[in-house]
Amino acid sequence: MDLNVAQKLIEAHLVHGRMQAGEEIGISVDQTLTQDATGTLVMLELEAMGLDYARTKLSVQYVDHNLIQEDYRNADDHLFLRSAAQRFGLWYSRPGNGVSHPCHQENFGKPGCTLLGSDSHTCAAGAIGMLAIGAGGLEVAQAIAGEPFFTRMPEIWGVRLTGSLPDWVSAKDVILEMLRRHGVDGGTCRIIEYHGPGLDGLSAMDRHVIANMGAELGATASVFPSDRETRRFLHAWQRESDWRELLADPHASYDIEEEIDLASLEPLIALPSSPGNVRAVWQVSGEPVHQCYIGSSANPGYRDFAVAAAIMDDKVVHPRVSFDINPTSRAQLELLTREGCVLELLRAGARLHQAGCNGCIGMGQAPATDTFSLRTVPRNFPGRSGTPEDKVCLVSPETAAASALTGQITDPRTLEMTYPRIADPDAPIVNRALFEKPLARGEAATVALHKGPNIASLPEFDALPDAFDLPVLLKMGDNVSTDEILPAGARVLPFRSNIPRIAEFAFERIDDAYAQRAHDTGDHCVVGGSNYGQGSSREHAALAPRFLGLRMVIAKRFARIHAQNLVNFGVLALTFADGGDYDAIESGDVLHVEDIHAALSSGSPLIVRIAAKNRQIEVRHAMTPRQVDYLLHGGALNWTKARLHAA
Amino acid sequence: MDLNVAQKLIEAHLVHGRMQAGEEIGISVDQTLTQDATGTLVMLELEAMGLDYARTKLSVQYVDHNLIQEDYRNADDHLFLRSAAQRFGLWYSRPGNGVSHPCHQENFGKPGCTLLGSDSHTCAAGAIGMLAIGAGGLEVAQAIAGEPFFTRMPEIWGVRLTGSLPDWVSAKDVILEMLRRHGVDGGTCRIIEYHGPGLDGLSAMDRHVIANMGAELGATASVFPSDRETRRFLHAWQRESDWRELLADPHASYDIEEEIDLASLEPLIALPSSPGNVRAVWQVSGEPVHQCYIGSSANPGYRDFAVAAAIMDDKVVHPRVSFDINPTSRAQLELLTREGCVLELLRAGARLHQAGCNGCIGMGQAPATDTFSLRTVPRNFPGRSGTPEDKVCLVSPETAAASALTGQITDPRTLEMTYPRIADPDAPIVNRALFEKPLARGEAATVALHKGPNIASLPEFDALPDAFDLPVLLKMGDNVSTDEILPAGARVLPFRSNIPRIAEFAFERIDDAYAQRAHDTGDHCVVGGSNYGQGSSREHAALAPRFLGLRMVIAKRFARIHAQNLVNFGVLALTFADGGDYDAIESGDVLHVEDIHAALSSGSPLIVRIAAKNRQIEVRHAMTPRQVDYLLHGGALNWTKARLHAA
Repeated sequence: MDLNVAQKLIEAHLVHGRMQAGEEIGISVDQTLTQDATGTLVMLELEAMGLDYARTKLSVQYVDHNLIQEDYRNADDHLFLRSAAQRFGLWYSRPGNGVSHPCHQENFGKPGCTLLGSDSHTCAAGAIGMLAIGAGGLEVAQAIAGEPFFTRMPEIWGVRLTGSLPDWVSAKDVILEMLRRHGVDGGTCRIIEYHGPGLDGLSAMDRHVIANMGAELGATASVFPSDRETRRFLHAWQRESDWRELLADPHASYDIEEEIDLASLEPLIALPSSPGNVRAVWQVSGEPVHQCYIGSSANPGYRDFAVAAAIMDDKVVHPRVSFDINPTSRAQLELLTREGCVLELLRAGARLHQAGCNGCIGMGQAPATDTFSLRTVPRNFPGRSGTPEDKVCLVSPETAAASALTGQITDPRTLEMTYPRIADPDAPIVNRALFEKPLARGEAATVALHKGPNIASLPEFDALPDAFDLPVLLKMGDNVSTDEILPAGARVLPFRSNIPRIAEFAFERIDDAYAQRAHDTGDHCVVGGSNYGQGSSREHAALAPRFLGLRMVIAKRFARIHAQNLVNFGVLALTFADGGDYDAIESGDVLHVEDIHAALSSGSPLIVRIAAKNRQIEVRHAMTPRQVDYLLHGGALNWTKARLHAA
Repeated sequence: MDLNVAQKLIEAHLVHGRMQAGEEIGISVDQTLTQDATGTLVMLELEAMGLDYARTKLSVQYVDHNLIQEDYRNADDHLFLRSAAQRFGLWYSRPGNGVSHPCHQENFGKPGCTLLGSDSHTCAAGAIGMLAIGAGGLEVAQAIAGEPFFTRMPEIWGVRLTGSLPDWVSAKDVILEMLRRHGVDGGTCRIIEYHGPGLDGLSAMDRHVIANMGAELGATASVFPSDRETRRFLHAWQRESDWRELLADPHASYDIEEEIDLASLEPLIALPSSPGNVRAVWQVSGEPVHQCYIGSSANPGYRDFAVAAAIMDDKVVHPRVSFDINPTSRAQLELLTREGCVLELLRAGARLHQAGCNGCIGMGQAPATDTFSLRTVPRNFPGRSGTPEDKVCLVSPETAAASALTGQITDPRTLEMTYPRIADPDAPIVNRALFEKPLARGEAATVALHKGPNIASLPEFDALPDAFDLPVLLKMGDNVSTDEILPAGARVLPFRSNIPRIAEFAFERIDDAYAQRAHDTGDHCVVGGSNYGQGSSREHAALAPRFLGLRMVIAKRFARIHAQNLVNFGVLALTFADGGDYDAIESGDVLHVEDIHAALSSGSPLIVRIAAKNRQIEVRHAMTPRQVDYLLHGGALNWTKARLHAA
């Protein structure tokens, strides 16, 4: 049967399940990518697993998120991550090298391989024929330890590109067109595969722009073929030997088919405050603009900055505009410097920031109150910029630069100049001296992890007992969110690498005495209503209460990801067989459960006895056999640890 | 009588008093400089005074401190400052243009003129023959409104420089030598005037390095002559017409005389955590280093970065070192880019930050815990970097660059290379397009101040009544600091332009119910012990309690600056004639004072009656007639407003 590129990638890595949309599949992972915001926990998980040395073909630890260093914690994290990369056999990309996604494509990505990354924009590497997927930190840690990645087989959505882009329209407008058509959940449970003759006019970095923002469509991955352009790109980066051709078979088909005529596109803009809120730029032109911002993993290439420099054309930006340039990598910044673009941008009024994620993730460059900010970044969720009720718009570099000159939202086609069409360079500056190679296995084993005062090893968790007597410490209503279970924000997040410390915030919005009571009680359980654990996917919402002794949650219904996180960290997540039994349990009750192991393994209900009330209720679980196995071991860390030591 | 340069500058601007060391003198102010951290309050003070248009020859509002923009407040401040500059007839230097001190020297400073700045390193402009003094915001606001600056006539300390600097030793080592000899208070109540044949080898920017850190010696100002080098510098910056010669007379003498043989100097380092803790670099070489940092107003010139680039010499910095490059101005960054220095620094591993104050004032780049950071900045006070118990050392660019390569504290003379001697460029890049000119008077009057939600006009304060009945809301012990009166820190400082909001923090460390009680009570007083108001000079410690109704402080003894700040904001600052009377007053007492105006004007004691106890005590003041006049008007703002409207 003829296969498309996505199917070929999956088939070549399939270790579990069948390629039927919706079925659970397991895929072997060739490469991983972690960044510093999620990576500290991943490295602590590797430590807890007792991993000796990475089992992937290649794993890279980047430092690109927390670069501001307003106090010791960011810098301490960097030293910790460097020591962990040395300890576990990973590459280490130091602060200043740039954002993981373009750096990975330029220096490490390989057509035909799989990449799992603890960052939602990992999908960008699909630009060079990889199957690249963003995942939770624990899943990436398991991948580094040699485990496959499990997901449901997505539908493959073929997007055929025809024609070529008009002047003043570029790759960003292609993905904005996708968002205009399909909104922010159009890609859910799908892999978007781009194909067709229109690809010929899109460089590998243009494809990166499009693949990257597949995350904004909610797609599992974005995939491009590996073709002549991919070869040219890898040759330019002095890695032609990493190239292999990967094309769809002649009669390959797709679960969903769609076409975009590139020649029909015009400059687009996503208005506040959703990437899906797309209009033509001309429809909103004339609004005053106070910030124009070039950079981020959504427009990281040489071309994206060079075109802005060319548009400056000896002019100066409007006096009210802050013109923020965020280079995405050291290598691109060097090239932009050598080619005179940096000089032109500075002359025109740019504020040149260090290479890294910066304002794209709210690390600086927040706009002023009630002012428009035009950015080439991938997301404009409300407040993500750091300014509550911000007015961030997503645009191409062309539109951002044109608007910087005029001080208002400007369709770049109205500039009185010839379109400066700039190609992806055939001779970029390749500078790998600042990427530290993995240590050899023997040397790696001797490295001690460098832990500042805010970094603590993960606590050890015991296996699941076969019987429990657990006091109910909290009884909650419906729709409890992970923000209520463990808040985020500047007060709490700095302790992300310090579980004992962050656990003090557990459930504080519901009952600020919970942490102390749990600490005094030890093993305990809580009861929730419907949709328990909705919201953010943060793993700390399972890890922190588990640290305080949480062993079981009984709820009417769980939000999917939180249920998985509970299992991953060894907490029994059970639902009432009869929702009415919710009323039978009160805070302070002691629940007795026994024969747990047999019930979990057989899939039969568990019986919970409310000791003082002489009453029994029935509870159930929805775990796969793999998840049951995690739980019996006390969580995925213990499970992976056992596998590592058995192997 | 033959005069030295400092005396000539003072004599030419003397409008009050005599040039006798220790006597109060008033000096007319030609130019002012404000930056964003202090400038928002200055602009609110100009608004409160009802100033129509700046009365100085030139005033510049810079934006260089708060550039990170983690939320809307920094960006809102920038828009506010721009609108205030337009409203009051000031120049506006937008974010990205760079640090006030080098920018001012390059674009605005003028030999023979006086400069008053709301920044302690304003003294740097002494490099080109200015009398340049750092002062409190209110004094700068008064200067902009046309009032002279008052201070005590300092002693003039002549430092004769002979010889020329050896290879690998540069201007920073000269000022570190001064700090080695005299410590951090060696310059108190003094103007340091550099003279002698050694000046011939020091460029205008080298002189800036030395003049800048006069602040670290506690000096009132640092002064250099305006000579051929000054002319060359101004010519290079296309301002030769601003040059005038200003040399000491042939037989000029100094109150204190000293000599430094430049040829005898070696690379020096100020160890943690004081600029006065100076050693030779060779004495401490070999210690591991995790951060090397080039930039700040203490080493802002082209040479300072170019020498670091030359030292890189195709090598890469040590893997553990964060090599932070903080360009000090857009113009220097452009030049460094054009000349290839930026490319060399990036290649070697630099993290290139935006032009501005950055880590020098703790805005980012904090070092990791318990690691050495070698910086070319002017100060290494404990924790100033953002890392508590940091280990910041002050060094020359040569020492910082050499140590970046080796990863340990390194005497640059031990590098195996020829010293790259780099001259101050004769053709810098002059880019004034990003400085906004003052509006003409008529147009300025039509500008409305742009106030974000965190910027509020200053409250209006009434004149001092002639009699009071004031409840005592607090009675405090000795050594109450301004930190206790109004804390600083990330929780409080963001409200610096919002007096009603910041006032909620007043005295909270002493009594967290004070603000509410004061709000409910209205006019009231407090009682302090000895050394009341010690510590930081922040004006908010007077302004915020005054807003809450504080009209009088009676103490055993006041710290000097806080007493002045109280007077400036219209609060009576009185001392017990008999310290024993301190015991007679209790919190809750109501104090009756009458005939205040006559007593203040005549200098006779005031009588305070403790109403309920039928007891009288005598209190005194130490104000000058000018200060009494401030107080009678309800503070310096009202006083200046009255003068403006009478004129």
